[in-house]
Amino acid sequence: MTTHEILKSARAAWPALRAADTEKKNAALNAMADALIARQDEILAANAVDMAAAQGHISEVMLDRLKLTAARISGMAQGIREVAALPDPVGAVISRVERPNGLVIERTRVAMGVIAIIYESRPNVTSDAAALTLKAGSACVLRGGKEAFNSALAIVAALQSGLEQVGLPAELVQLVRDTTRQSATDLMTAVGLVDLLIPRGGAGLIRAVTENAKVPCIQTGTGICHVYVDAAADLDMALNIIDNAKTSRPSVCNAEEVLLVHEAVAAAFLPRLRARLVDARAEKGLPPVELRLDARAARIIPGTPAGERDFDTEFLDYILAVGIVGGVDEAVAHIAKHSTGHSEAIVSRDPDALRAFEQGVDSAAVYLNCSTRFTDGGEFGLGCEMGISTQKLHARGPMGLEELTTYKYVVRGDGQVR
Amino acid sequence: MTTHEILKSARAAWPALRAADTEKKNAALNAMADALIARQDEILAANAVDMAAAQGHISEVMLDRLKLTAARISGMAQGIREVAALPDPVGAVISRVERPNGLVIERTRVAMGVIAIIYESRPNVTSDAAALTLKAGSACVLRGGKEAFNSALAIVAALQSGLEQVGLPAELVQLVRDTTRQSATDLMTAVGLVDLLIPRGGAGLIRAVTENAKVPCIQTGTGICHVYVDAAADLDMALNIIDNAKTSRPSVCNAEEVLLVHEAVAAAFLPRLRARLVDARAEKGLPPVELRLDARAARIIPGTPAGERDFDTEFLDYILAVGIVGGVDEAVAHIAKHSTGHSEAIVSRDPDALRAFEQGVDSAAVYLNCSTRFTDGGEFGLGCEMGISTQKLHARGPMGLEELTTYKYVVRGDGQVR
Repeated sequence: MTTHEILKSARAAWPALRAADTEKKNAALNAMADALIARQDEILAANAVDMAAAQGHISEVMLDRLKLTAARISGMAQGIREVAALPDPVGAVISRVERPNGLVIERTRVAMGVIAIIYESRPNVTSDAAALTLKAGSACVLRGGKEAFNSALAIVAALQSGLEQVGLPAELVQLVRDTTRQSATDLMTAVGLVDLLIPRGGAGLIRAVTENAKVPCIQTGTGICHVYVDAAADLDMALNIIDNAKTSRPSVCNAEEVLLVHEAVAAAFLPRLRARLVDARAEKGLPPVELRLDARAARIIPGTPAGERDFDTEFLDYILAVGIVGGVDEAVAHIAKHSTGHSEAIVSRDPDALRAFEQGVDSAAVYLNCSTRFTDGGEFGLGCEMGISTQKLHARGPMGLEELTTYKYVVRGDGQVR
Repeated sequence: MTTHEILKSARAAWPALRAADTEKKNAALNAMADALIARQDEILAANAVDMAAAQGHISEVMLDRLKLTAARISGMAQGIREVAALPDPVGAVISRVERPNGLVIERTRVAMGVIAIIYESRPNVTSDAAALTLKAGSACVLRGGKEAFNSALAIVAALQSGLEQVGLPAELVQLVRDTTRQSATDLMTAVGLVDLLIPRGGAGLIRAVTENAKVPCIQTGTGICHVYVDAAADLDMALNIIDNAKTSRPSVCNAEEVLLVHEAVAAAFLPRLRARLVDARAEKGLPPVELRLDARAARIIPGTPAGERDFDTEFLDYILAVGIVGGVDEAVAHIAKHSTGHSEAIVSRDPDALRAFEQGVDSAAVYLNCSTRFTDGGEFGLGCEMGISTQKLHARGPMGLEELTTYKYVVRGDGQVR
């Protein structure tokens, strides 16, 4: 099937899902989880084909992301069961008003329709994304990376058998067959067939979507996250937060990429920073953080001189750009100029500085005295996550089930005219 | 100034508005209203230039829309004062959660940034749109129709003087100087400078935006609205609703364009429809409605045979496409295929038919036994309106002040790391 045909059949299947109640959707999800386990051998065999083809072509880290095991498939099934256990976002009445003319106007949460997701190699995204989309009442069209194609195909076949077991159409979850760029473009331009497109990937994918998309999109994921250490910071707390934000998982979008330090504490703080992120880590056999220093920071501690692009780069690595600023206003201005609007933190005990940072920073998440790493659906208590939106329209920050729905107005009358 | 320079200066001015509290924003709005009255003579003189240039080039209806009078300017000023009196949407805490680790996560409503609006000839849109945008905390870049350029320029100059009187930058409300298509394209592609683009206009503008926009947009306005008369309809009520939906103001987007009648009542209903919309109106000297009938309806009453496009056309005129359907499911399917997702109504006393229509129709507003004409911010109790969204992302149906804002997460901690 062409991508267009897949979208048309997903749209044709959607009314069956819209008509399904919560119980039926949950039964479908649990059947999908069971089917993943039941078809484990086929999925592992398909994954072995992908692994063999990828060997030598992608990095060890990427190979590890691609690899499936019985334990990982079990984790995917568990993830689907957890989505089944979440409250149903569809059908809730968001607001209700009775007008003087007797009209009763309800704003009700409803499903989107067809949600398309473009993602990269990890096979588990296939089941995660399908489960969240179905629970939100929408049909799901997936376009994964070519390295994981056989794995994704086997996973989708299992999910489809789960749908069919409860009498829902298999076309509600589909994988795009074409793994060239053309299929991504096809999804981006399928006006009237795609109600929401979610690109989950790196800066290149996001740029391509911004350039080419004609369907409604939510941009996710790129994070040039800042931590600002104020003059009134608890420096021990600042060290802990920076260490966590930079080194606990440098490859993720909520990791810190830039550190801004108030000039009044730079001389005291930077040597401790270097000791913690560079020397102590090296002693423990951990990868040390490469500090890329602006001219003023470089006068205080040794490190790599920051290049022109270092304050505008999502390193996703053990690298931290370090700059010195005159105060919170300069930090806010720097962030406005260089941030991707994802997550920024201040460390300070000064209520005025905290307030200025909170109000001045225009990002999805603003952290006061805690790590940027908390920008995550699970950590925010949403119970799940489809990605982190860095745009201002519709959804901002971690997207849970509600962010995958829309609403409509239902107006009840008894012959009213205007 | 070029459109790009205007956008940059609006963005540079925005922080001053973000820092303004409700009182200051309202003071600015009231000063803007005063300035419209104080500068009435300049505005009327500028409008006279536009009217003279337009004479003979646009229809009488359009000329009337373009024309300003002292009373209309007074109405515009009153509109701004009403916006000042509305509750401030910015700053509200939408949700708050305390996590087990002690983090307090608040989702807070905040301003968008720079909102650009592309609209057509009516000069009053200039002040309406500016007032709503400012109240929602965003800078406003307006791109009006070329016929109203001098009028809009004079109105914006007055609004800017009001801003300056309370110490806010004039650049918060600006009019694009270029009235060629290029400036609309410039706004659509100003990635990073426009946080939200709202096109207010006809199908051609909406198509151009879908094709070309790279910035976040909300599509507004085109409405192919349906009324379905069920077998269990109160036929007197149905006649009143259709008469209202079709003839009270045929040029607006919430007017009815298509009537679907259940086959069981068609023989009884259609002659009454014709008597009401055609004969009775002609007797009263009102423009009769042209009925464009599908083959089955044409066997019951005289009328124009419906052409291929008549069920997919926003007539905005005294024209109504009429079709016969086998029941509510066929009506829902017809609407799914032909509607623009704006407003659809059912007339019925049958709870099952009402439920099937309510759940099956995927439009911004679904009306049970009342007119489609109620899709309007004022009628919905929003106190104002920036347009009617026909998309599913961010805003659906009438957009009030809240729909012109976004939110961010503010996370308060005491050294928490993940």
